[in-house]
Amino acid sequence: MNEWLDSPLLTDLYELTMLQAYFDGGMNETATFEFFVRALPTERNFLMAAGLEQVMEYLERLRFTSDDLFALEETGRFSASFLRSLADFRFTGDIDAMREGTVFFADEPILRVTAPMREAQLVESRVMNLLHYETLVASKAARIVLTAPDALLVDFGLRRAHGAEAAVLSARASYLAGFGGTATLAAGLRFGIPTSGTMAHAYVQAHEDEAQAFENFARSQPGNATLLIDTYDTEAAAHKVVALAPRLANEGVLIRAVRIDSGDLAEHARRVRHILDEGGLTKVTIFASGNLDEYRLHELVAAGAPIDGYGIGTRMNTSADVPYLDSAYKLVDYAGQPRRKRAEGKATWPGRKAVFRLYLANSVMAGDWLTLEHESRDGEALLEPAMRDGLRCTDVPDLEACREHARRQLRALPGAQRTLERDEPYPVAVSDALRHMARQLDAGAGAAPAASSNATSPANTPPSASSGS
Amino acid sequence: MNEWLDSPLLTDLYELTMLQAYFDGGMNETATFEFFVRALPTERNFLMAAGLEQVMEYLERLRFTSDDLFALEETGRFSASFLRSLADFRFTGDIDAMREGTVFFADEPILRVTAPMREAQLVESRVMNLLHYETLVASKAARIVLTAPDALLVDFGLRRAHGAEAAVLSARASYLAGFGGTATLAAGLRFGIPTSGTMAHAYVQAHEDEAQAFENFARSQPGNATLLIDTYDTEAAAHKVVALAPRLANEGVLIRAVRIDSGDLAEHARRVRHILDEGGLTKVTIFASGNLDEYRLHELVAAGAPIDGYGIGTRMNTSADVPYLDSAYKLVDYAGQPRRKRAEGKATWPGRKAVFRLYLANSVMAGDWLTLEHESRDGEALLEPAMRDGLRCTDVPDLEACREHARRQLRALPGAQRTLERDEPYPVAVSDALRHMARQLDAGAGAAPAASSNATSPANTPPSASSGS
Repeated sequence: MNEWLDSPLLTDLYELTMLQAYFDGGMNETATFEFFVRALPTERNFLMAAGLEQVMEYLERLRFTSDDLFALEETGRFSASFLRSLADFRFTGDIDAMREGTVFFADEPILRVTAPMREAQLVESRVMNLLHYETLVASKAARIVLTAPDALLVDFGLRRAHGAEAAVLSARASYLAGFGGTATLAAGLRFGIPTSGTMAHAYVQAHEDEAQAFENFARSQPGNATLLIDTYDTEAAAHKVVALAPRLANEGVLIRAVRIDSGDLAEHARRVRHILDEGGLTKVTIFASGNLDEYRLHELVAAGAPIDGYGIGTRMNTSADVPYLDSAYKLVDYAGQPRRKRAEGKATWPGRKAVFRLYLANSVMAGDWLTLEHESRDGEALLEPAMRDGLRCTDVPDLEACREHARRQLRALPGAQRTLERDEPYPVAVSDALRHMARQLDAGAGAAPAASSNATSPANTPPSASSGS
Repeated sequence: MNEWLDSPLLTDLYELTMLQAYFDGGMNETATFEFFVRALPTERNFLMAAGLEQVMEYLERLRFTSDDLFALEETGRFSASFLRSLADFRFTGDIDAMREGTVFFADEPILRVTAPMREAQLVESRVMNLLHYETLVASKAARIVLTAPDALLVDFGLRRAHGAEAAVLSARASYLAGFGGTATLAAGLRFGIPTSGTMAHAYVQAHEDEAQAFENFARSQPGNATLLIDTYDTEAAAHKVVALAPRLANEGVLIRAVRIDSGDLAEHARRVRHILDEGGLTKVTIFASGNLDEYRLHELVAAGAPIDGYGIGTRMNTSADVPYLDSAYKLVDYAGQPRRKRAEGKATWPGRKAVFRLYLANSVMAGDWLTLEHESRDGEALLEPAMRDGLRCTDVPDLEACREHARRQLRALPGAQRTLERDEPYPVAVSDALRHMARQLDAGAGAAPAASSNATSPANTPPSASSGS
C-alpha cells in the first residue's frame, strides 16, 4: 500500500481544491509560508528542529503521475484545464531553514517556503506532517540524552511507533538528538544509523532450558550477544550466565551484555552487577529496557543504578507525555505584502522573518531575536538557505554533521533549559519593526478586532547578553 | 524513501538474529503467538480491534528481495546458509483474529499467529506496529463517535499524525469506528473513504478582501464549498456570507457550509446560526474544528451548540490522551507445549486461547470468557479464521462490512462502557482450565517464582448472564 505515501495525493483535499480556486482566479504570485510552533508545551523547555532532509526529498520528487491525475479526475471536483496544469507541476521555490539539530523556541520559524502560491500551498500538509513528527521526537530524545549523557541509548520503538514511517523517522530523529543507535533495521540501513538488538522472551521460552537458550544464542552471535535474563527469574538467570561464560570463552565465544526488561531495574541491576562481577564477568555490560523515558532514567541515574545502556521505545517514539506540538504553517507574505492571521488565540507574526541567537562569553545561549528578514542583528543567524529554485543547496549538512551540531546545541543550553521540569522561559525578543508591522496590519484591517493576546505573548525584553556566536 | 516500509527489513534487528539462532539450532517447530493488550488505560473502558487487513497484506507480500539479502549480508551478522534460506521465505501460517471493529478488553487475544517458529517470530515487530496503531486510533475514534453520534465526523489529522502511514491508517481506523470521512485524499482513494475538505486561512489571507475570497472559492467549488469564517472576525464573516449567497444562488452556485476553527465554538456557532438563519441560509451547515476530541465534543453537545459536523484531527490521530497501548505479542505454544512468560508485572496467560461473548436478552454485552482453544462455551466465539496456510480466507469481511460490525458493537456496549470516565470494568472471566494450565506451568518451572499478580488480575467470576449471541 505504500505507493500512496510518496504521492502528491498524500495531502488534505483542501490543498487541491484551493489550488483549483487559485487557478480559476489566476492567483499564483510569490507566497511565503513559515513553519513554527505557537507555544512550548509545559513539559518542554526547548525544542529541536528535525525533518528538513525529508522535506527536501519530498519537494525534489514531487510529481503528479498520470495515475494521480486520473484519480483526481475521477473525483469530479477539478477542471480539465487545471488537471492539465498539474502534469508538469514541480516545486521551483526556495527553502530557508534552521539546520537540523538546532534548538528553537515558540514563534521562531524553523522553515520558510517561498514559492509561487500554488506550490507553497500544495505542500503544506506533508511538510507539516514531516517536520512536526521529527521535531517532536528529536525534542523528546534530546531530553533523554541530557538525562543520561554517558549511557548508550538505543531506539527500541518500532512496535508501538505510529506506523512504519514513524518508526523509521523516529530512529533518525533520536539519532540526530544523540541516541547511539536503533533496533529498527530498515532505519539503520536507510540512514546509516548503527543497529543493535538483543533477544526476545519468546526465544527463551521456546527452549526447554533457559541456559540452553543463552548458549545457543551466544554461539549464534559470537561476541555480539546480549542475553535477556528476566523471562523467569533475573538473578537466577545471571548465575546461569556466569556458569556458561567460561565454557564459551574457552571456545572464543564472548557474551557482550545482559538485558533486564522488568521489575525494579535499579535493584535488579545492582544484584546482577554483583553476580557478574563475582563471576569474573566485569566486562559484560548491563542493558535495561521497559517503558523508559527521561523521567524514569532520571530516577535510575539518581539511584546510581549500574546500567550501561538503555533501550528506549514507546514513550520516546510516541513522545508520550507530549504526543503533538502546536505547530503551524502560515502565510506571512503574498505578492510582496505581509499577511497576518488574527483568529482568536491563533494570531501570528506577519512578514518574512529572521531569528538571531546571542551567546554569553562562555558559549552558553543568552537569548534570541525574532526580527523581520531584512533587519540585521549581532549574533548567529539561524535560518540558512536549504533550497534555491527547487534545487537543494550543496552545503546542507548531512545527518552526521547535524548530529554533531545537535551535540553542540545541547552543550550550549542554559541551565534553565536543561532541567526536566518547567523552568524560566528562554528569552526570545521581538524586534520593534516586527511589532510595528503587526500593528499596522491590524490597523489597516478596519472592522477586524485587534490581535489577540497570543500575538503579543513573546517576551518583550531583548536578551541582555553579549553578542557573537 | 518509502521502499523501506514494505520490506521485511522493517523489523527489529533481533527478529533476524533470533532467526539465525533458530536456524543454527534447527528450531522451526510450530509456534503460536497471540497479540493482546495487557491492561486497559484508565481513559478507556473498551478497545476496538483494527488493522487485520493491513497485517494480512503484509504477510501475503512478505519476501526478501536480492537487495534485502545483500543488505543483510553486508551487516556481517548472518551466515551464508541462513541467508540462502531466506531467499524463498514465505509466510505459510494460519491467522485467527477478531473481526475488525470488534470491541475487546484486557488479556483477550485479538490475533493469533500459528506458523513455523521462524515465520511467526520474524513478523512480530511489524504485526505489532500495524495492529497497535490502528487499534489505538479506532478505540479513540469510537469514543468520539459515541459522544456525537448524530454529527458528521471527519478526520482532519494528516498534518500532525506521526508520519505518512499513521495519517493514512488513522483515516481508515476512524472510518471503521464510525467517522463519516477524511480530509486525507490518499486515504480516501486507497480505502474508498469519502473525502471532504474546506479551505485554509491562507486562502482568505491571500485575497485583499475576505468576501472576494469567499466568492472565488464558492464559484470554484459550486455546491461544494465550505467557507472558513474565522480568519479575522467570525460574525462579520458570517454576514458577508449572507450578503454573498443570494447573488451566487441566482447563478446556481450554492454554499454548503461554513467552518469555525477558533474561539468559543459553541458561542460562535449560536451567533453564526442566528445570522445565517436570519439571512435565509437555513440550509447552510456549520462545521467546527480546532483541537477537538471526545471531551471537547461532550461539552459542545451538552451546551446544545448548533454544530452539524466536526473536523477531528491531532488528538484523534495521535490518540493524545493515551498515545500507546500496553500491547504484547507473546509466544503461548511451541512444539505442542504451552508457554508462559513470568517476568515481574508482565506474566501472560499460556496456551492457545479462545474468547466467547455473552449477551443479555436486549442484545447488550454481558461478559466474556477467556478460555483455552479447545474449550466450548455458550456465546459468540470472537476469534475467526482469517488466513490458512498463508492464504487469506475468502470470507474475511471488507472495510464497509467491518464498519457496520463496529456500529453494531458500539450499540451493544453496556452503559458503563459508554461513558468517557472510568466506570465499572467489563467482566472477563478466565476458565478453570486456563488457570489450571498456568498453575501447572509455574509449578513445573521449579526454581522460578510464582506468577506475578498480573497473571491473576483478570476478573475471577464468570459473567452471570444469559448466553447466545
